[in-house]
Amino acid sequence: MPNTREQILDVASRLIHLRGFNNTSIDDILRECGIGKGNFYYYFKSKDELGLAALDRNLEQIKQELVQKSFVPGRGPWDQLWEFLEYPIARTRKNGCAGGCPLGNLVLEMSDIHEGFRQKLHLAFTELRTRIEDCLRQAGLQGTLREDADVSRLARFILAAFEGAFLLGKLHQDPEVLAGIIEELKQHLEHYRTEPALGSAR
Amino acid sequence: MPNTREQILDVASRLIHLRGFNNTSIDDILRECGIGKGNFYYYFKSKDELGLAALDRNLEQIKQELVQKSFVPGRGPWDQLWEFLEYPIARTRKNGCAGGCPLGNLVLEMSDIHEGFRQKLHLAFTELRTRIEDCLRQAGLQGTLREDADVSRLARFILAAFEGAFLLGKLHQDPEVLAGIIEELKQHLEHYRTEPALGSAR
Repeated sequence: MPNTREQILDVASRLIHLRGFNNTSIDDILRECGIGKGNFYYYFKSKDELGLAALDRNLEQIKQELVQKSFVPGRGPWDQLWEFLEYPIARTRKNGCAGGCPLGNLVLEMSDIHEGFRQKLHLAFTELRTRIEDCLRQAGLQGTLREDADVSRLARFILAAFEGAFLLGKLHQDPEVLAGIIEELKQHLEHYRTEPALGSAR
Repeated sequence: MPNTREQILDVASRLIHLRGFNNTSIDDILRECGIGKGNFYYYFKSKDELGLAALDRNLEQIKQELVQKSFVPGRGPWDQLWEFLEYPIARTRKNGCAGGCPLGNLVLEMSDIHEGFRQKLHLAFTELRTRIEDCLRQAGLQGTLREDADVSRLARFILAAFEGAFLLGKLHQDPEVLAGIIEELKQHLEHYRTEPALGSAR
């Protein structure tokens, strides 16, 4: 039998992902869980506390499903980046575009109105950017990244296009819209990718 | 003295832009307008009707402020695209990143839960994409676009990066984050831009 706290977090994550945080009420969550208000407040002091805990859990899932599977130490940097960029394509082809990126949704919904959410999201995107920058720097050391690449700007651009792909996929309800944007992003990265100098390992 | 309907739409647009549609109540709007409920329902049957009317008005403003000023017939296609891409940089440097793109916000908030909003937004993004595609095709005819460019995919990519730039600008609360992403997007377009063949006009 699943732990009640976990069950509440499961339902909250799913509803917030599909409807947004402000558009999901505690009553909606309780109804789906089949538990009472008293039980809820035993685990969470407020809806904000629940929302932040659901976000933490989402971030942990993204770490396991995406970050740790893409950014594998020892794997070539371009392979790591390509694995990262394949993830949204594979996920939306399998599950459709509904919901989109749970983090991107919350960025637009919460950044201006809830500093606690913004800071958590800011940290998560900064960690992701650091992983991407590490790949690009590793490529630079291997001699497979053009020297005029602005690593930090390029890493932000990758995240922007990644989030924009989710946004347009959600609007068009079409995984192939998202896939086309990611393919164009790979094309952009190919412009910065060079053959390694003779004698250097990939 | 402003028309009451316009006054309601002004306040609604501003609040929806900053807080989201679902997080803005009719009461919030009435309080800011200083008008009563009866007066409100004389102009709008429901909050949905108000939200869609506010979106229409937003779209009209974007058409006047951005679309018609960027995509000027007779101007060179690359100049038109550059003008379009300057807009978010100039706007956020002047006004800050709060709010972000009113259309992108609604795409993520409403696409999965309100088909009326989604369709209106879908139409708006399709019109914008058509303008961008027209520029790229015009560049193709002038011989200033590489022949391997996938015009439709590239136009979607431009919109995705444009929206992603607003998203990360809003997260970081920093216009320079947005500006860097747009500059990288221009770099991507530069890869597709070629010198015109001898004898052709720009």
